[in-house]
Amino acid sequence: MSRPTPLSGFPELLPAERNAETYVIDHLRRTFELHGFASVETRAVEPLDRLAKGGEIDKEVYVLRRLHADEGGDSGLGMHFDLTVPFARYVLEHAGKLEFPFRRYQIQKVWRGERPQEGRFREFTQADIDVVARDELPFHADVEVATVMAEALSGLPVPNLHLQVNNRRLLEGFYVGLGLTDPAAAMRAVDKLDKLPRDKVGDLLRSDAGASADQAEACLRLAEIRTHDASFADRVRELGVKHELLDRGIDELVQVMDALSGLPLEGVTVTADLRIARGLDYYTGTVFETRMEGFDGLGSVCSGGRYDALASDGKTTYPGVGISLGITRMLVPLIHHGVLTSSRSVPSAVLVALVDEASRPQSNAIAQRLRARGIPTEVAASAQKYGKQIRYAERRGIPYVFFPGDPAQPDQVKDIRSGDQVDADADTWRPRDEDLRPTIVTPESAIEEQAK
Amino acid sequence: MSRPTPLSGFPELLPAERNAETYVIDHLRRTFELHGFASVETRAVEPLDRLAKGGEIDKEVYVLRRLHADEGGDSGLGMHFDLTVPFARYVLEHAGKLEFPFRRYQIQKVWRGERPQEGRFREFTQADIDVVARDELPFHADVEVATVMAEALSGLPVPNLHLQVNNRRLLEGFYVGLGLTDPAAAMRAVDKLDKLPRDKVGDLLRSDAGASADQAEACLRLAEIRTHDASFADRVRELGVKHELLDRGIDELVQVMDALSGLPLEGVTVTADLRIARGLDYYTGTVFETRMEGFDGLGSVCSGGRYDALASDGKTTYPGVGISLGITRMLVPLIHHGVLTSSRSVPSAVLVALVDEASRPQSNAIAQRLRARGIPTEVAASAQKYGKQIRYAERRGIPYVFFPGDPAQPDQVKDIRSGDQVDADADTWRPRDEDLRPTIVTPESAIEEQAK
Repeated sequence: MSRPTPLSGFPELLPAERNAETYVIDHLRRTFELHGFASVETRAVEPLDRLAKGGEIDKEVYVLRRLHADEGGDSGLGMHFDLTVPFARYVLEHAGKLEFPFRRYQIQKVWRGERPQEGRFREFTQADIDVVARDELPFHADVEVATVMAEALSGLPVPNLHLQVNNRRLLEGFYVGLGLTDPAAAMRAVDKLDKLPRDKVGDLLRSDAGASADQAEACLRLAEIRTHDASFADRVRELGVKHELLDRGIDELVQVMDALSGLPLEGVTVTADLRIARGLDYYTGTVFETRMEGFDGLGSVCSGGRYDALASDGKTTYPGVGISLGITRMLVPLIHHGVLTSSRSVPSAVLVALVDEASRPQSNAIAQRLRARGIPTEVAASAQKYGKQIRYAERRGIPYVFFPGDPAQPDQVKDIRSGDQVDADADTWRPRDEDLRPTIVTPESAIEEQAK
Repeated sequence: MSRPTPLSGFPELLPAERNAETYVIDHLRRTFELHGFASVETRAVEPLDRLAKGGEIDKEVYVLRRLHADEGGDSGLGMHFDLTVPFARYVLEHAGKLEFPFRRYQIQKVWRGERPQEGRFREFTQADIDVVARDELPFHADVEVATVMAEALSGLPVPNLHLQVNNRRLLEGFYVGLGLTDPAAAMRAVDKLDKLPRDKVGDLLRSDAGASADQAEACLRLAEIRTHDASFADRVRELGVKHELLDRGIDELVQVMDALSGLPLEGVTVTADLRIARGLDYYTGTVFETRMEGFDGLGSVCSGGRYDALASDGKTTYPGVGISLGITRMLVPLIHHGVLTSSRSVPSAVLVALVDEASRPQSNAIAQRLRARGIPTEVAASAQKYGKQIRYAERRGIPYVFFPGDPAQPDQVKDIRSGDQVDADADTWRPRDEDLRPTIVTPESAIEEQAK
């Protein structure tokens, strides 16, 4: 069979790149679990009617057909295009066996039949956290979801992340308090500030949301408020609008910002950004978006908010709040631009050299002693000259080569980067801690390493 | 929307059950990485022609169609039904960027549109390891793959596993040495010993493989040889057949058995079982199957072997050897029979109680001090009476409840299983090591726990 070519929109990683992805996934998982979020996986497919919103499927869903199906027809199943729809179904299906409030994380692939472009994929991995309750979900869940995701984003080997928070109640209360009768139209207009200049959005507010020139100006001034702490509240109040819903929205956003601004975050800035509305999504309170510095074209890489009804079976309603991180959307552009990879293509910290093929059992035994102490180790594939075995390690990024000794001479280990070679006992020698796992390589860290 | 019902063949786990699955996956991954196997993930879909063997697709493949596709036609993509076909494609596609011999593990879901039944699923997770080389792969790779998978199976929270090893060269050499002209037909007949009585298989050997009564008897006696070490070799030689290929097969199987019988395995027995032929699969040397005790109906849960050509692009051939473990096939029947789960539905080892809603920040701060030392912790969802908060922990299987003190009284922690309550400092107190993560619960471990 001929050499295969890549499928557009279905990114695949080389082993060293995959190490960077698993590093990120492990970091997320560890953070979510430290906060007591339970792991859930749902099946990859849902019945088509579950994937529909209001009777219609607006996403580019992949439908499944069994190749050998008698009828030749569709299976009635589509591949999930996000993790929210399947999670809502999981909650309804298993409600009797779950404890509420239910706090779960879910890291899985999703599929969309979209036209591929930078940062848009047909298969991609998402990491979602949600808290869902029966009937009522206290507001502190919004604060919790925000802080857990902010901690999870902190320290990732990616460019600076800008987490933007807003509150739809605040927007709606402001618009209604201002005298506008169609707050949803106002939100839709303001949401276009990304793409349109200020005066065009002002035009839209007047034409679509029925605003006067003063009202439109007030909406725009609200949308321009951005603070890194709870001080946005004073600036909103300076605009002089009063409404009960506005007060509640301000109070909620203050709580989220107070909690977030108290966190020791690394590489994550948090902004109360009163322009964020999350388009047409069905959020009702807190909303989140996240931009990655230097990659504005990707749009938001981590978004979410509060739903009054994440799920409902007609009798019981399950409100929820959650955030979804686009792992592939965030990492694959970095990997493809060569600004993220790892130091090696194998987990091995050590290559045990081979004196000759007959002594493979001795080399295996050394490897097992190292593995018994948690040191990933492989044995050379063939008994080439030592220079070639060292090259074998080098090509894979393995930092140490262990040379079996003989009765007259102890075993030795060489750090092939420095060339240092010392006597070593496989029961006690350890690599440097930072060499135990592949190191994540970013352009900054590569430059730092060279400067040493 | 109404309460959803399960989709047959698409198993989903509750959180406590999912903990058992992640425990197993983490154990496998740790073992594979300790041996230096690199992690690879391939996309979920392959072009249909890649999924065909000899021009035909004999598996029940799911084909993808874009719901909003203009033409309404198939995408030409099918979901992968195993991890071997996509791995072979990955090797060909990325050959120029991989280092050979290439040793990888791959833990992913696969899909088959089969009729669901016990142990047969439409979506299931597999864990594969393979070693693949360019042009030539030394035999020690067979030994390595066998020992790594045996170690990975060792200590899993499942019934005893019986790893059975054989060698196709040994079988072929024996049949040819015996004077049979169609060794493949003989292999197919012997492979039926699972389902047919001895004399019926004898009949088949005579009718389909052209064996005389004595030859058929020799084939059956070979198939009855089973040893836990390399002593099978003497018993094969006692049958008096001589052939070069037989000698090579015996020598290879001796090497595998010598390596396996030297491993300190827990819950895994290894047998050289000369009946195993792996049906019609394209194996050429070593073959593996694995039975789980008490679950014979599942068939083999972990199988594989040596391919002379895992992949080929016409110019270069890539021989390989690998084993595939059916994680879902092994675990879901245990979970559904109630013989495998975990001690809790959340990762949390500690629930921090809430004095009242106003003091949530203090409880959060205690939780953060515990998390900072790697202790998964959650804070009570509401400030109910302490009895109710303890019940909240109990329902989730959280072993400890931490009670915030006040200036007059230190914080305290209660082990809610024993009722013991002691003063505790969130910067130094630790749960028992075995309480840090959910404990895997098997019927045996549950009985042991009760006996304490």
